[in-house]
Amino acid sequence: MAPAPTERELVSRLLDELGDAVRTDDEAREAARLDKSGWLAPGRPMAVVEATTIDEVQTTMRIASEFGIPVVPRGAGTGLAGGAIGSTGEIVLSVRGMRRVLEVNVADELAVVEPGILNAELNELLAESGLWWAPDPASKAISSVGGNISTNAGGILCAKYGVTREAVLGLSVVLADGRLVEVGHRSVKGVTGYDLTALMIGSEGTLGIIVGATLKLRPLPTGVVATIGAYFSDVVGAAAASAAITAAGLRPAALELLDAASLALLDRLLAGEPGHQPLSQRGSAYLLVQTDGSASEAEAREALAIIQAAGGDAELTTDPEEGERLLRVRRMAHPAFELAGQVLIEDVAVPRSQLPAMFAAIERISAESGIAIPTIAHAGDGNLHPNVIIPPDMPRSRDGEVPEQIWQVADRLFRAAMELGGTLTGEHGVGLLKRRWLIDELGLDGMELQRGIKAVFDPQGILNPGKVFGPMSLEPELEMASTRSGAE
Amino acid sequence: MAPAPTERELVSRLLDELGDAVRTDDEAREAARLDKSGWLAPGRPMAVVEATTIDEVQTTMRIASEFGIPVVPRGAGTGLAGGAIGSTGEIVLSVRGMRRVLEVNVADELAVVEPGILNAELNELLAESGLWWAPDPASKAISSVGGNISTNAGGILCAKYGVTREAVLGLSVVLADGRLVEVGHRSVKGVTGYDLTALMIGSEGTLGIIVGATLKLRPLPTGVVATIGAYFSDVVGAAAASAAITAAGLRPAALELLDAASLALLDRLLAGEPGHQPLSQRGSAYLLVQTDGSASEAEAREALAIIQAAGGDAELTTDPEEGERLLRVRRMAHPAFELAGQVLIEDVAVPRSQLPAMFAAIERISAESGIAIPTIAHAGDGNLHPNVIIPPDMPRSRDGEVPEQIWQVADRLFRAAMELGGTLTGEHGVGLLKRRWLIDELGLDGMELQRGIKAVFDPQGILNPGKVFGPMSLEPELEMASTRSGAE
Repeated sequence: MAPAPTERELVSRLLDELGDAVRTDDEAREAARLDKSGWLAPGRPMAVVEATTIDEVQTTMRIASEFGIPVVPRGAGTGLAGGAIGSTGEIVLSVRGMRRVLEVNVADELAVVEPGILNAELNELLAESGLWWAPDPASKAISSVGGNISTNAGGILCAKYGVTREAVLGLSVVLADGRLVEVGHRSVKGVTGYDLTALMIGSEGTLGIIVGATLKLRPLPTGVVATIGAYFSDVVGAAAASAAITAAGLRPAALELLDAASLALLDRLLAGEPGHQPLSQRGSAYLLVQTDGSASEAEAREALAIIQAAGGDAELTTDPEEGERLLRVRRMAHPAFELAGQVLIEDVAVPRSQLPAMFAAIERISAESGIAIPTIAHAGDGNLHPNVIIPPDMPRSRDGEVPEQIWQVADRLFRAAMELGGTLTGEHGVGLLKRRWLIDELGLDGMELQRGIKAVFDPQGILNPGKVFGPMSLEPELEMASTRSGAE
Repeated sequence: MAPAPTERELVSRLLDELGDAVRTDDEAREAARLDKSGWLAPGRPMAVVEATTIDEVQTTMRIASEFGIPVVPRGAGTGLAGGAIGSTGEIVLSVRGMRRVLEVNVADELAVVEPGILNAELNELLAESGLWWAPDPASKAISSVGGNISTNAGGILCAKYGVTREAVLGLSVVLADGRLVEVGHRSVKGVTGYDLTALMIGSEGTLGIIVGATLKLRPLPTGVVATIGAYFSDVVGAAAASAAITAAGLRPAALELLDAASLALLDRLLAGEPGHQPLSQRGSAYLLVQTDGSASEAEAREALAIIQAAGGDAELTTDPEEGERLLRVRRMAHPAFELAGQVLIEDVAVPRSQLPAMFAAIERISAESGIAIPTIAHAGDGNLHPNVIIPPDMPRSRDGEVPEQIWQVADRLFRAAMELGGTLTGEHGVGLLKRRWLIDELGLDGMELQRGIKAVFDPQGILNPGKVFGPMSLEPELEMASTRSGAE
């Protein structure tokens, strides 16, 4: 490895070879310090490369390898775990400008795309062909396909339609040293060698830079969409009803659950709307069910019966406008949380049958700590987002820092999920914010294997160091940005 | 690494620590020389360890590591690529005796099992709970769950229900040095670190020994099963009809295609049956379609219309007995091929739309080489099994060896698949038989990454060396066994 260059030497070399693709202005560098978690890196990256071609990505990595300088791959910057944040001494390599759709193949139900295209943009385009790409994170209007792949994004529809890993056939990847490799297949099946495609999915920019993807598409669901909105007197009962729906073999497209603290914040947000009837008066938990496909109405009727038997106050509709009204309660949850101030969004997942127990644990932790934790859950797959609200008046060691007391609450949430057979992160990834717990879940031997794989792909340790695990060149001294958004 | 011991030293140590689990008799060692590909290793392994506990697997690996002796993991021995064959200087470690079902969790739709249980045994047991494990290789009556996982087994139902990788949540793995690690989750979602579960699936015993699996189950499909049997005047037309069915957004559970050479061999097999009407007189290709689920009849009617518009002579039934009669044509294909003599079963996969082109290529290669290649295809996912029949009178350099002329035919088949955007192996794996083509598909950089991962898990190179890739301590001097069976 060459001796560490001054920033000026490196940036000058990037400018020489990449010209206008290299941004060194304050605005671009400042924007790359944060993502949608609300966290801000302690410093600014030295430059942001806005690549529009594979060749520019390769050139950047060749130069970075030569100088031994860390590179943070970045898409739309909508992550919730700090995985695409750049800081002092780093280059941020954005592929947001690589957004072409290179092929849509209807017969083979696949598309070949560049990583920067947004999920929703792609799906709008695919709809003409009667197809869609199923990964459905709540951020889909603003998050990129490459980012969805890098985090193995989940979302609302996973219980029925799977996670991102099940919707990608192959990838084009630029390695740390600038080489381009193709992994995976265009065919549905293929078992030639280890599954490097699955390995790349969810690797959060630590193994290589995804510069192209062959996506597995599905025909758009047929039939009407049926929607149920149901209020329950307590969240544990609502969670039990939700678990009973899946245990009955039903597979709704969406099965979403909000607790009492969420409904209270929604009432604060919606209070000003004409005719708003307080949600909190209708119940202490809200369960949203949507079914699609040829059997959607029959499935919805079965789900309704289960909900009513469990004491839910429910309405069922197949009218799109009415359905949208029932869905809106879920859609407005994140904006409502923002009203309460700064939030640490957790992302635990538990086996479905443990949802009631996890909700009970969250209630207990909230009561014991005195911290509000409004929680929404993708109940169909056991993935919960407890939103730990930081009281504005809580003392902090320095401005913008997450108080240790909040980390302690997060720690208790994570341990409760683990005790129920669950996991630290269902869909957001580890990034910077969750790495302190990684070893608790993976164990020492698991960590050793993971670090070994990292070293195979990135022997210099220049790809997104400090994220997930790896050389801890970045201390977790992160400031919480005052701006945050409701992406997930 | 200790100096190489004599076989006697090593076997004595195994006997000391594992007692009766160690088989050194001729019968056990001879049986471990072959699998269902019909291939026979040049020599016999020095011992076969028949483990019944995780502890015995760990002990075996600790001793093997200490002595630096290769270990071949083995399940039911039904592989079709030589991946579980043991030879001179090797220990075969069978987990066939680890066959307990440790948990069936209906609410979470998962089962925790040991690797040696047979696929069909497991599914029989799960049926009581209204659940099933979807991987459906044709060998399911005789192949183990662990073997299905080690090869990422496919089968007939993959287009609708996915491959094995999509049906496994977590694994217990004994590493080369005897350590036990747990990878994956019990929850549906989970993105903590790299996906080592997906990496293990399809790794053919080269990364670790699977000693336990948490399987993702599905509710048994509801509704009637509808079956269509259709004859076409040529296989390319039948392949086009099959591609049209999936392109129409239909998703049959099974979509299987047989060519004229297959029908001719079936007629030979079935000629003696009372009332047999020659299949070859009805057409030159046979397409089997089965639909299940709540919309099965509607789907089948749509498929039937597409088939008839494409010129197919078809019948549709929902009667189970009639359905079985239509299915039998497909079921008897392998026994029919065995009539023709020794067979090299290929396993290419192409994008679905390329099925007609691949069938045309097979016909051309067969005509030009003068070698019969009866072919069946899992048409729904583009996976073809061309069965290259070795003429009994073809000259061979030594008895039982595959003539180079047959390898040349296989080489042409593989290259044709690659040119159509396909892959070397859809579901059988690389094992010993396909490794000569691995680098053509993966490329030098891809191979380097794969070997790097192998070295992380198995630095001494003692796990199934010579299989897939890796230290080529086994020369591909394999004899074809005179016994072979119709598993796939």
